Amino acid sequence: MTPSSPDEYGADVSWSDWLAEQAASREAAGLTRRLRSRGPDDAVVDLAGNDYLGLSRDERVVRAAADAALTWGGGAGASRLVTGTLDLHTELEAELAEHLGQPAALTFSTGYHANLAVVTALVDRDCHVISDAHIHASLVDAVRLSRAGLTVVPHSDVEAVEDALSRGGGERTLVLAESIYSVLGDAAPLAELAEVCHRHGALLVVDEAHGLGVHGPGLVARAGLAGHPSLVVTATLSKALGSQGGAVLGSADLVDHLVNRARPFIFDTGLAPAAAAAALAALRIVRDEPQWAELVRTRVGDLAAALGVTPPAGAVLSVPMPSPQTAVAAQAAALDAGVRVGCFRPPSVPDGVSRLRITGTAGVAADDWERAVEVLLRVVKEHQ
Amino acid sequence: MTPSSPDEYGADVSWSDWLAEQAASREAAGLTRRLRSRGPDDAVVDLAGNDYLGLSRDERVVRAAADAALTWGGGAGASRLVTGTLDLHTELEAELAEHLGQPAALTFSTGYHANLAVVTALVDRDCHVISDAHIHASLVDAVRLSRAGLTVVPHSDVEAVEDALSRGGGERTLVLAESIYSVLGDAAPLAELAEVCHRHGALLVVDEAHGLGVHGPGLVARAGLAGHPSLVVTATLSKALGSQGGAVLGSADLVDHLVNRARPFIFDTGLAPAAAAAALAALRIVRDEPQWAELVRTRVGDLAAALGVTPPAGAVLSVPMPSPQTAVAAQAAALDAGVRVGCFRPPSVPDGVSRLRITGTAGVAADDWERAVEVLLRVVKEHQ
Ligand SMILES: Cc1ncc(COP(=O)(O)O)c(C=O)c1O
Ligand SMILES: Cc1ncc(COP(=O)(O)O)c(C=O)c1O
Repeated sequence: MTPSSPDEYGADVSWSDWLAEQAASREAAGLTRRLRSRGPDDAVVDLAGNDYLGLSRDERVVRAAADAALTWGGGAGASRLVTGTLDLHTELEAELAEHLGQPAALTFSTGYHANLAVVTALVDRDCHVISDAHIHASLVDAVRLSRAGLTVVPHSDVEAVEDALSRGGGERTLVLAESIYSVLGDAAPLAELAEVCHRHGALLVVDEAHGLGVHGPGLVARAGLAGHPSLVVTATLSKALGSQGGAVLGSADLVDHLVNRARPFIFDTGLAPAAAAAALAALRIVRDEPQWAELVRTRVGDLAAALGVTPPAGAVLSVPMPSPQTAVAAQAAALDAGVRVGCFRPPSVPDGVSRLRITGTAGVAADDWERAVEVLLRVVKEHQ
Repeated sequence: MTPSSPDEYGADVSWSDWLAEQAASREAAGLTRRLRSRGPDDAVVDLAGNDYLGLSRDERVVRAAADAALTWGGGAGASRLVTGTLDLHTELEAELAEHLGQPAALTFSTGYHANLAVVTALVDRDCHVISDAHIHASLVDAVRLSRAGLTVVPHSDVEAVEDALSRGGGERTLVLAESIYSVLGDAAPLAELAEVCHRHGALLVVDEAHGLGVHGPGLVARAGLAGHPSLVVTATLSKALGSQGGAVLGSADLVDHLVNRARPFIFDTGLAPAAAAAALAALRIVRDEPQWAELVRTRVGDLAAALGVTPPAGAVLSVPMPSPQTAVAAQAAALDAGVRVGCFRPPSVPDGVSRLRITGTAGVAADDWERAVEVLLRVVKEHQ
């Protein structure tokens, strides 16, 4: 090991130069994203988040989280397979499975982990994956990580799925969909997909991230497909359930398989007690108080009608804007008027259309909601 | 779309058959893992977890978690880039950076996410990754996901790293190591690795999962390498900090890059308030009360001496056993006597040697620790 000058080794680009270049080209393209920190109770009406039912701030949910931290500690302390499986996890898993009508459930420390886990534990190089063009980044990453062959089919195109299934391509096939897609807020043709998958011996994975809670037990259950032998559900605990974490739901054999084979489960610390308890308290509210989900759907439906856009299947309204610039300007104008909404711009929209993203959450008081609607009607009109 | 019988499509193996086969072959090989759930306060002395300093149950930590849940809610409610960045995250990031002597920090919802994020955001197909043979599953998955070219070098072999660097292989190179490795509990030759990486224009990623807390700010800082331009640190909040989550620490440019490019950051809900607050409270204890880390090191050193094994660099003692069967039997005997320890068996040991894994945690009262030591001395002796 002879000491020598850096250049001799011909590292063409040093890392700090590369990071600086990357930053400069983001800046030049107007694509730099910055974190903006918020306090616990700012005056802004927040219609940008995913706390669809407002349960994250529900007294019973936060009390359950606080009590769990005091009783169980700040963390699970180890992998679920070592000493990190708490009675709290087991209880949450039992009630999730029951409410969603599935034989068994397994929780993860994020929804992202749940998606990584189910895909990577089930598929290998001999498998083929067929995925909807609009699926979430976590499922896209899951497929990449699995190294399975991949066919991306046009959005919600059941015939394209069937074509891909007919062409085969692997020993076993997984089909990936969401019950409600994040960007357009549209629902998947679940019954058709399940039928086609079943007929071809394929397994359909449905991500209920945006369906659970907003439609009670989710759209899989609502479609009478819970427990379907060719269907697996994934979910997050971080949206309608107002907490953190994720879950996979399906047969007991599937759960056993994940426990034994899913690396993002095995090599990860168990979900923190406070998060598990918050999700459990929220789940019970979802089960016992359907009025919050109804409120969300009413709010979203009314706002969609007022704005003249298609009502979404879930809690999130997608309002197409003429350009990325107008979308950003409208978002800023709304914030100036005290209403925070989200904004989708390329490259994070599958069809290139920029959009405002407005969450019809039940977590906002009636007068705030009415004020927000007024602001949004005005702002959207001014920017269209 | 003509309805037809499943067979026609030639799905060789149906999913449920495949799951059953997998379960049967695990069972036949004696490799089935099962979850065992525990209560908040079982009578067992737990030396199997990663709550190294006992901070997960510290009054100040659990109080901070509970207060944060009450103040902020059960979850962060959205991606950090939307409305999920809380003042709590910003505070935690500032104090993490300060305590670890790094310019900047970014927190993630798990340590796994932190590792996936840093590798996938930095490398692409033009990059080369050199990884130590003993790195954690999350870093292995990160490399797979990044699709970079990979050279695995023998454990802690700096010359092999230098050889691989000299051979080149990509425009930019990342070298992956841990400050203290999980399985053998040994420390990496950090100063040598940093020097070699710097000389070759490579970036060294050091996972401090098992170093942070047990060695105050971690071994990178202890080696005087904090802020080194060719070094990036990752950490988990789920071990010595007794909570859940992860962090990446390095230059402000690096953090900006992750905010803009790391998919496991961008497309994931922010870390739950209770977890962020618990980690922050624990970090302050690590900073202000070095006695807990000292206690861990004393306990581990004494136990290693008594058992006649090499003292580890971290909190976890690795005791080689003659066979997987004796390791499992010893673990069961210890549990019968009220002491829970971990057990490493192939395939999760890099060198094929089965081991007991004993955590010298400060989270156990003095009399419990003494009782546990007696049990372990007896049990190990009986099984060697
Ligand atoms: C469809 C979908 N799946 C999975 C996730 C990931 O869930 P989590 O934030 O709990 O990791 C998200 C959003 O975050 C999502 O929108
Ligand atoms: C070295 C190492 N890195 C990363 C992780 C993942 O951290 P977390 O459990 O916070 O996801 C672990 C263990 O869980 C680990 O041992």
